[in-house]
Amino acid sequence: MKKVGIFDSGVGGLSVVKSLIKENFFKEIIYYGDTARVPYGPKDQNTIIRYALEALEFFKNFDIDMLIVACNSVSAYAISDLKEVAPFPVVGVIEPGVKALQNRIKDKNSSILITGTKATIESKKYKNLLQSLGYRNILQKATPLFVPLVEEKIYHGEIVDATMKYYFKEFNNIDALIMGCTHFPLLKKEYQKQFPKTLLIHSGEAIAEYLKDNFNLQKVYKNTNISYYATENPANLKKVAKEWLNL
Amino acid sequence: MKKVGIFDSGVGGLSVVKSLIKENFFKEIIYYGDTARVPYGPKDQNTIIRYALEALEFFKNFDIDMLIVACNSVSAYAISDLKEVAPFPVVGVIEPGVKALQNRIKDKNSSILITGTKATIESKKYKNLLQSLGYRNILQKATPLFVPLVEEKIYHGEIVDATMKYYFKEFNNIDALIMGCTHFPLLKKEYQKQFPKTLLIHSGEAIAEYLKDNFNLQKVYKNTNISYYATENPANLKKVAKEWLNL
Repeated sequence: MKKVGIFDSGVGGLSVVKSLIKENFFKEIIYYGDTARVPYGPKDQNTIIRYALEALEFFKNFDIDMLIVACNSVSAYAISDLKEVAPFPVVGVIEPGVKALQNRIKDKNSSILITGTKATIESKKYKNLLQSLGYRNILQKATPLFVPLVEEKIYHGEIVDATMKYYFKEFNNIDALIMGCTHFPLLKKEYQKQFPKTLLIHSGEAIAEYLKDNFNLQKVYKNTNISYYATENPANLKKVAKEWLNL
Repeated sequence: MKKVGIFDSGVGGLSVVKSLIKENFFKEIIYYGDTARVPYGPKDQNTIIRYALEALEFFKNFDIDMLIVACNSVSAYAISDLKEVAPFPVVGVIEPGVKALQNRIKDKNSSILITGTKATIESKKYKNLLQSLGYRNILQKATPLFVPLVEEKIYHGEIVDATMKYYFKEFNNIDALIMGCTHFPLLKKEYQKQFPKTLLIHSGEAIAEYLKDNFNLQKVYKNTNISYYATENPANLKKVAKEWLNL
C-alpha cells in the first residue's frame, strides 16, 4: 500500500507508527497529531467526533489509500462517523486489539482487564466487542494518569510505582490486559512488572497483525517515508518521533 | 462592581472563584472554562493567545465590567494581547501574585520558588517581574503533573508524595513559593507539608487582595450569582464547582 494516514490526538500514536514501520507495509505515512487540543481521553463523545471529522478534512488534502486511527479514544467514539463519510478505508485500534487477544486467548472464562482513558473505558467498546465474542470475565479500569506521565517522559520510578499500585491494587490473576491507549506501551515494562504472568495487548502490534490478516499487506517497501503534521509545535512531534522511533 | 467575567482553561479557575466569592465584590460572575481544549499548560504561546482571543469574543456577548484571567498560563502569555483589544479592564493572576509576595517578603535576598505549568515557567513572567522589583534569589520549577492529579481528585497519598519528592527533592530553605497554577491550591496541604516554613502564594487570594488595593473593591453584595459556561460538558463544571466551592 502506497500512502497511509495516521491520526492521533497528539504524539502518542507514534507508538503505533513504530510497530508499522517495522512491517514495511507502506511507502509513505502522513502522521497528523492534534497537539493543540491533546489530550482527547478526558473529553466528551461529541467533542471527540467533532475533532475527528476535522482531522478527516485534513487528510482529504492527501491522496491516502487508508486512514489508521491510532488514538483509542477516537477509535472508541468516532470510528463509525469517520467510516460513514471517509472516501478511503478507516481502521481503528479497538477491533485489532480484540482480534489480537482472540488469537491468543481461547478460554472464554479467562480474566481480561481493559485499561484506557476515561473516554475509551466509558465507551465500553472493548468490553462489548469481547462480550459479543463470548468472553465472560471482563474488567475495566480507566488509568488516565499514565498519559501525562508518558508525556513527561516518566517511564519508571516512584511515581509510576505509586500510580500502578493506586490503579491496580485490587486486580489479581489477570490472564490478558489491553493497554488501550497509545501512551501505555511506553510503560510496558512496568505493566509487566505489575502483572508478571499476564499477556499484554499493544495497539500498535495488534494493528500490524490486523492489517496483515485483513488487508493482506506484505513487507514490500525497504523504507517508510514519514511526514509529520501537528496542530501546534510540529518540531516537538518530530523530536519525540526521533526519540521513540530511534530514527 | 456588578458583573465580572472569569476565564480559565478548564475547571481550575474555580479556586480563584472561591477566593472571590468570599469577598463579595461582585453581584454576578460569568465563568467560562475552555474544557474542550484543556489543559493549556503544555501548549505553545501562539495557541494560548489564539484561544484567549476566542474567549474574549465569548465575553463580548455579556455586559461585563472586568475580565479576570484565572489561568496562569494565559496570564503568562496572552494578557497583553487581551488588554490591547478588550473593551473592559483585563486582570491576570501574575501581577497580583507578585504583589502579594512583595507585601509579605521584604528581604530581597529571600529565596523564592515559582511553580507552574510548562507555559507559565517558560514564559519567565513571574521571574522577570520579581527581578525587576529587586529580588535576587529566584528559582523556577515546572510541575505539570499536579494538574492531572487534581483533575483526578487525587489530593494526597502515595502518588502525590512521590510527585512532590520528584519535583522538589533539590529545593531547600525556600522562603516563599508561588503556586502558579489554579490547580495547585487544591494541593496546598501537601505543598505546606513539603515546605513547612515556607510562605505559600495562592493566585485566588492574591487577586482578591489586588482588586481591593487597586480597584478599591469592597464587600458590598450579600451573595454572588455565578453562571457557568464551558466549551464542553458544562454539567461537569457545575459538579466540580459544587464540590470545590461547597455550594
